Amino acid sequence: MNSFGVVFRVALFGESHGPAIGVIIDGCPPGLPVEAEDFMTDLRRRQSGSVGTTKRKEPDLPEILSGVFNGVTTGAPVTIVTRNSDKISSDYDEFKSIPRPGHADFVSSVKHSGFADMRGSGHFSGRITWGLVAAGVIAKKIAGSADINANLISAGGSEDIEKAIKEAMDLNDSIGGIIECRVRNTPQALGEPFFYSFESALSHIIFSIPAVKGIEFGSGFRAASMKGSENNDPFIDNSGKTSSNNAGGINGGITNGNEIVFRIVVKPTSSTGTDQTTFNFKEGRMTTLQVKGRHDTCIALRMPVIVEAATAITMADLILIDRGIHGER
Amino acid sequence: MNSFGVVFRVALFGESHGPAIGVIIDGCPPGLPVEAEDFMTDLRRRQSGSVGTTKRKEPDLPEILSGVFNGVTTGAPVTIVTRNSDKISSDYDEFKSIPRPGHADFVSSVKHSGFADMRGSGHFSGRITWGLVAAGVIAKKIAGSADINANLISAGGSEDIEKAIKEAMDLNDSIGGIIECRVRNTPQALGEPFFYSFESALSHIIFSIPAVKGIEFGSGFRAASMKGSENNDPFIDNSGKTSSNNAGGINGGITNGNEIVFRIVVKPTSSTGTDQTTFNFKEGRMTTLQVKGRHDTCIALRMPVIVEAATAITMADLILIDRGIHGER
Amino acid sequence: MNSFGVVFRVALFGESHGPAIGVIIDGCPPGLPVEAEDFMTDLRRRQSGSVGTTKRKEPDLPEILSGVFNGVTTGAPVTIVTRNSDKISSDYDEFKSIPRPGHADFVSSVKHSGFADMRGSGHFSGRITWGLVAAGVIAKKIAGSADINANLISAGGSEDIEKAIKEAMDLNDSIGGIIECRVRNTPQALGEPFFYSFESALSHIIFSIPAVKGIEFGSGFRAASMKGSENNDPFIDNSGKTSSNNAGGINGGITNGNEIVFRIVVKPTSSTGTDQTTFNFKEGRMTTLQVKGRHDTCIALRMPVIVEAATAITMADLILIDRGIHGER
Amino acid sequence: MNSFGVVFRVALFGESHGPAIGVIIDGCPPGLPVEAEDFMTDLRRRQSGSVGTTKRKEPDLPEILSGVFNGVTTGAPVTIVTRNSDKISSDYDEFKSIPRPGHADFVSSVKHSGFADMRGSGHFSGRITWGLVAAGVIAKKIAGSADINANLISAGGSEDIEKAIKEAMDLNDSIGGIIECRVRNTPQALGEPFFYSFESALSHIIFSIPAVKGIEFGSGFRAASMKGSENNDPFIDNSGKTSSNNAGGINGGITNGNEIVFRIVVKPTSSTGTDQTTFNFKEGRMTTLQVKGRHDTCIALRMPVIVEAATAITMADLILIDRGIHGER
Repeated sequence: MNSFGVVFRVALFGESHGPAIGVIIDGCPPGLPVEAEDFMTDLRRRQSGSVGTTKRKEPDLPEILSGVFNGVTTGAPVTIVTRNSDKISSDYDEFKSIPRPGHADFVSSVKHSGFADMRGSGHFSGRITWGLVAAGVIAKKIAGSADINANLISAGGSEDIEKAIKEAMDLNDSIGGIIECRVRNTPQALGEPFFYSFESALSHIIFSIPAVKGIEFGSGFRAASMKGSENNDPFIDNSGKTSSNNAGGINGGITNGNEIVFRIVVKPTSSTGTDQTTFNFKEGRMTTLQVKGRHDTCIALRMPVIVEAATAITMADLILIDRGIHGER
Repeated sequence: MNSFGVVFRVALFGESHGPAIGVIIDGCPPGLPVEAEDFMTDLRRRQSGSVGTTKRKEPDLPEILSGVFNGVTTGAPVTIVTRNSDKISSDYDEFKSIPRPGHADFVSSVKHSGFADMRGSGHFSGRITWGLVAAGVIAKKIAGSADINANLISAGGSEDIEKAIKEAMDLNDSIGGIIECRVRNTPQALGEPFFYSFESALSHIIFSIPAVKGIEFGSGFRAASMKGSENNDPFIDNSGKTSSNNAGGINGGITNGNEIVFRIVVKPTSSTGTDQTTFNFKEGRMTTLQVKGRHDTCIALRMPVIVEAATAITMADLILIDRGIHGER
Repeated sequence: MNSFGVVFRVALFGESHGPAIGVIIDGCPPGLPVEAEDFMTDLRRRQSGSVGTTKRKEPDLPEILSGVFNGVTTGAPVTIVTRNSDKISSDYDEFKSIPRPGHADFVSSVKHSGFADMRGSGHFSGRITWGLVAAGVIAKKIAGSADINANLISAGGSEDIEKAIKEAMDLNDSIGGIIECRVRNTPQALGEPFFYSFESALSHIIFSIPAVKGIEFGSGFRAASMKGSENNDPFIDNSGKTSSNNAGGINGGITNGNEIVFRIVVKPTSSTGTDQTTFNFKEGRMTTLQVKGRHDTCIALRMPVIVEAATAITMADLILIDRGIHGER
Repeated sequence: MNSFGVVFRVALFGESHGPAIGVIIDGCPPGLPVEAEDFMTDLRRRQSGSVGTTKRKEPDLPEILSGVFNGVTTGAPVTIVTRNSDKISSDYDEFKSIPRPGHADFVSSVKHSGFADMRGSGHFSGRITWGLVAAGVIAKKIAGSADINANLISAGGSEDIEKAIKEAMDLNDSIGGIIECRVRNTPQALGEPFFYSFESALSHIIFSIPAVKGIEFGSGFRAASMKGSENNDPFIDNSGKTSSNNAGGINGGITNGNEIVFRIVVKPTSSTGTDQTTFNFKEGRMTTLQVKGRHDTCIALRMPVIVEAATAITMADLILIDRGIHGER
């Protein structure tokens, strides 16, 4: 359940304001070079700091607790953690009785019968994706020459992202965005029959990322308006190269070796500085809520690296499964 | 891999032109009334026959091989099969050297090192969804009062679906469509932390259905253009009811009790009657291919019942997991 | 749950007196030659017929429903079934109120809330192992040069097995036995860290076989009386060969390349022709029961081939996992 | 793979001489009271210190990193770690070229292609069971009124355990032992059909514990010498109570409500102070090895609490699965 993968398995743990957050990776091949420094580029990309991101600052330095020795993975489970430090928990006290619209406050209280740690959204916090990014760094080493790149291609409906964020900040509001991910040099034949298709596996992990509300591959929702003769991608050489790529590099759930292309939609940050009408569950009446605390104007800004990590993890798992069943290709 | 679910587990088997196709369901509660007749309504909805669907006719009568006795499930695995009958395999011979654009011909050959049964697309055929629909019939009994309805809301970009299909048929071409699924009376608290969110589990099974290339929940891709203050759904009563439903009934990956709403895009049927340019792998040169055989102008027409089944299976699994961990609610 | 394996996954279905029993194998590599005839040797070894086995005769001919085409596996799930034919269900009617001692009658009724198919012990019947043997035939092809041999080495406490069975038949009673399994030419490095050790995986599947009540590896229970200096196996060459084999070919849960040796105990068949005292649940009083019907004097006689199958399935799964994570060795 | 359980899932990580060892528990119900102090009784039972155990002293204080808030479980994954402190790694340097007989040195080197952390046996160390005991403390809260007791009932073949250990110490050698575990007040109906029988699940986790080489349930290996009429347990009342308990509380893989009884054999500690003949892989010749460092004369002394933990974890998982599928009983 709270793990992903069949052979290369990732499990996340931690709460936003608990002692630490982290990740455990099982099924990791031995001999991969791993140093604490390797994580810093991706972890920094995930961090806040730029315009439009929260003021919460976490050093987020990774500590490798297991599975790495003498600078390489050992074949035993890899565990990486970081301590939480910059916590202001009092910000979150009132959300038990007045759950924030769009947040997990209400459902986590119902789900966990009132026992959830709701400080900073607890285990539902976007902060938990830290471990996903850390696992992604190792997964990228398995994905080998595959070149995974995710970018925010629009925010608030505009391709001038900087401007859109500034406008939202001026309104004390938040905005969503669209992230496009492309994988060049992708191995062929990734994905297993029916239930573990490439798209099934990838969407499974992608929708675990907080704030994602949609995903499309290749021509995606545009395909609904296309003819088969337009949408089909003609093969043009012996390697399986196609002249168009409406399939986003995937036929029948299996990678065909062309560029993998998919887009995800990230909803606007639920926390906004504007007044919001909602229900006070304790007092049984409507009320007005203004979410204080620190939050991102556009959480999508910090998510490309998370999407890359999720993609790398999916590919690593599918690569190891395929190699197990079929041998080296 | 080729199974779905943690407690209520569904595995599919069979090839389009093999002896039989079917499904095995593990973790099915005992005491559910099940008769062969129960399956007929949904299986018929999946069948071809109406304008825009293939001329292949299969009686598709289900035979229950295990797990049901005296008209109720026994608690042992439930197996349901149907024999394939209306097979014309010679249609498919040339696709080994000239893989059809948009089809799994090329990838299945690469994936399975040339050993795949490619007759009628083999295990990659949409026909394999027969078992999904059969499993869905049982899953709906577990989902209880939840009312799951999927509909084709547009085809070829038009809401006048009948007209769109007629036009495509006139062009000897195929079209895609968008299916919307709504679940009323949905239980709260379905979905597990992080990796087994409702959206993760549902999208996993949905993308296993051939021809699906995108999914969005609630406001979906439109959320990218919305402000947080617009997209957030204010709570309006003690039950967790919200005045809008941009979240599609899901916050933080957990159902909040409001209607579940999601849409999927179905690409145009890859088989079209028009001439297509593609590569002849045997002769190493470009060629022109006209796909003969029987095929659907708009495969999306037959898919609402499959989407409902996938939704019911997901809900059944999440219901059993939730009840296991949390007890009866 | 009712499946075994991580990559090479086996699921069984069927009831003793239902329409059919069978097996589905997922994660099966493509290109393995498989013909119906391949199964007959092992399936016949599992059959009754010799002295000391039940008079129920099933032709048990396998039908391959999926996953095999042109005499080789295709990479899609392999499904193999056989029809039940020689059923006399009336034998079993009274066991609902007077559960047979040692049988699953009582627990299956509790477990499945009275809905279990109890004819011929239903899904709890030893007959369900038919599918295990069928899957074992395919698994042996993956295990390659490994030579798996199981034998009944004692029955009723005696190594003169024929005599022991004759004596038990004369008493109208049943006896247990010990089966020893040895694997020569076993690959090194099978078994994964901690929870998927070779012994964990193998004992998991072995204890699924009805009537098994114990397993020991290498010196097994004798090791409790040995000194470390006696029990340790000294290495004697560069390949890892050891001069003794008290470890049964497994150190730290991983195969070391020496012969794998384990023994299992099979309890006496629960059905005996003698009068047995037990409880009548319907009438709430003690009663005397004589189990009619056909049964084995020594079910262990038919089990070596099942133990071999379980071993081959375990090895196949561990081989594919190891190759996935570590590549070809 | 390196996790156990379907719903209540336990994963272990860490190496003997790495920074920390620990456990992550997924699927843990919210609302269970958990304090650091709760762990101390069981963790101390696992610790060394008494006669016959190693001189390595670890404070082993647990730190709860996630999943517990305000003294109760939250429903999110529970992570518990402890730092390693009393490490003397230089003891282990030579085992790379001269692997210790009976240890995992050789196989871990082969398995992980020379990259394993072999200090203190790394991930293969008995020290890794610390996390199992910690998880067991939480599992026991789920197992509720079930009363799980494991005891060392013989060592070195003698029931006078103290004397046996003293004799082994005088010889500078090590001895094995037999642990018996009994569960009173066990719930009925635990265990799932075929592959997830109670015995399958329990033996799976038990054989993950280093040094275990055999397990038997109820009359176990003695059943091989018994008649069916002796070994069958007659029911004597409406609750399913039996007058004997040769089944060890389990029929058909499902608990019948009688006491669960099983025994395991623990081999003698592989490390002994005596001279051992073995192979020097570097120099390609036989040699004599004397294992220095600190070790247990009888590791079985410390294992009853580990066996209890493994039993509790198995029961917790089976309880949650059963409640999911069948509802509250």
